[in-house]
Amino acid sequence: MKELQQPSLFTCLSPRLLKLYDVRSCIVVVIDVLRATSTIATALHNGAKAIIPVDSVEKCIQLGKKLECITAGERDGKIAEGLKYGNSTFEYPREFIQGKTLVLTTTNGTKLMHMALTKGATEIITGSFLNVSAVCDHLIEMKQNVLLACAGWKDKVNMEDTLFAGAVVSRIKEHFTVNCDSSHIAEFLYNNAKGDLYEFMKQNDASHYHRLTGFGLEDEIRQCFTEDIANVLPYYVDERLVV
Amino acid sequence: MKELQQPSLFTCLSPRLLKLYDVRSCIVVVIDVLRATSTIATALHNGAKAIIPVDSVEKCIQLGKKLECITAGERDGKIAEGLKYGNSTFEYPREFIQGKTLVLTTTNGTKLMHMALTKGATEIITGSFLNVSAVCDHLIEMKQNVLLACAGWKDKVNMEDTLFAGAVVSRIKEHFTVNCDSSHIAEFLYNNAKGDLYEFMKQNDASHYHRLTGFGLEDEIRQCFTEDIANVLPYYVDERLVV
Repeated sequence: MKELQQPSLFTCLSPRLLKLYDVRSCIVVVIDVLRATSTIATALHNGAKAIIPVDSVEKCIQLGKKLECITAGERDGKIAEGLKYGNSTFEYPREFIQGKTLVLTTTNGTKLMHMALTKGATEIITGSFLNVSAVCDHLIEMKQNVLLACAGWKDKVNMEDTLFAGAVVSRIKEHFTVNCDSSHIAEFLYNNAKGDLYEFMKQNDASHYHRLTGFGLEDEIRQCFTEDIANVLPYYVDERLVV
Repeated sequence: MKELQQPSLFTCLSPRLLKLYDVRSCIVVVIDVLRATSTIATALHNGAKAIIPVDSVEKCIQLGKKLECITAGERDGKIAEGLKYGNSTFEYPREFIQGKTLVLTTTNGTKLMHMALTKGATEIITGSFLNVSAVCDHLIEMKQNVLLACAGWKDKVNMEDTLFAGAVVSRIKEHFTVNCDSSHIAEFLYNNAKGDLYEFMKQNDASHYHRLTGFGLEDEIRQCFTEDIANVLPYYVDERLVV
């Protein structure tokens, strides 16, 4: 049975819609499943000291030089020119990343974090299937309003971020008031997809399924749909993500 | 089997996302299922001469006086102050509306029509379950790019407009290239809802289901989910809708 006074839960399906939500006094969960927030969870789970998300390759190069740390990011499925590593979760095993700081280009995710910060979010964390339980446990524990903020693809709604929002909604909704069709749509989608998320993406012609399999990255997609294999809680503080 | 060169089909889930789509050389289908585009289909099907959509009660009153025609619109489930009729499809039977012009306030729908016009859409039509076949037959026949533009609710994504977009996608997709997750999400939703759209809205806690049943408008929702009972094709020309 629901308590009378529960915090609210909303889902924002595109960064362009963020202005419609009152972010103040919200925990904002930034979602970019393929692949920024999956890579962030993996690197932090494997002992990275911090991850600095930046919104361009240029900034990544500059900051990498200044701080003498690892630079990473992709454009069109390849490591971007001037950077050393890509977006793949497989590139960040413990033996490589432990104790290191990573500067990662992620256009949509970084923009969302900056927007949420500017608009006065109480807390900004990142979510992916790899750390879904850590995210949900935290949200239930905090008893504060929550905004699930999907990065999407070039500001358009995408399937994988919507599915992840749905995974969170389905796990935590009994603790929240959910008066938000985007949340209900996401949850319905996830409940029908959860048996095999990869297959759901394929069957329903998700654009990122086509894009990434076009680069031969099937394993990468499967990895990013595996729950709780990097079950940490990345916080965005002082323009960097830490656990 | 798909032809090699097919026009594109996109779904825009909120007016705030319209800028992301290239509306030029597109037929834009404006969707506001509960209840503007359902009422528009009904009134035109029952012989209305034209419907002039306006975005405020004030404009509705002014234009109603100037043109000496029927004014209609609601705020919070009641006929708005200064107007004569509401948004209900049941208010516009043939014996009342035939040969008349109706000025209708519809904030989201009107804004979308103006935006689509400004951005150079080839053609603007309105869609609802009541005229879904007329819309789909037309889109298939025209062989042009299509944008399904959902009005949503105060710029947020809503369930009923998404469901209608899905109904169109499911019916016409074989004639189009659909590289758009919003379309795929909408189609998945519709395919799972089509057995009983009313029940789907109820089961999945759609905000407009609650809002309208709160005003005692269950019959209204059921009516707006009945396919092809007002199967006309409303065109937006010279700031008015005609068939």
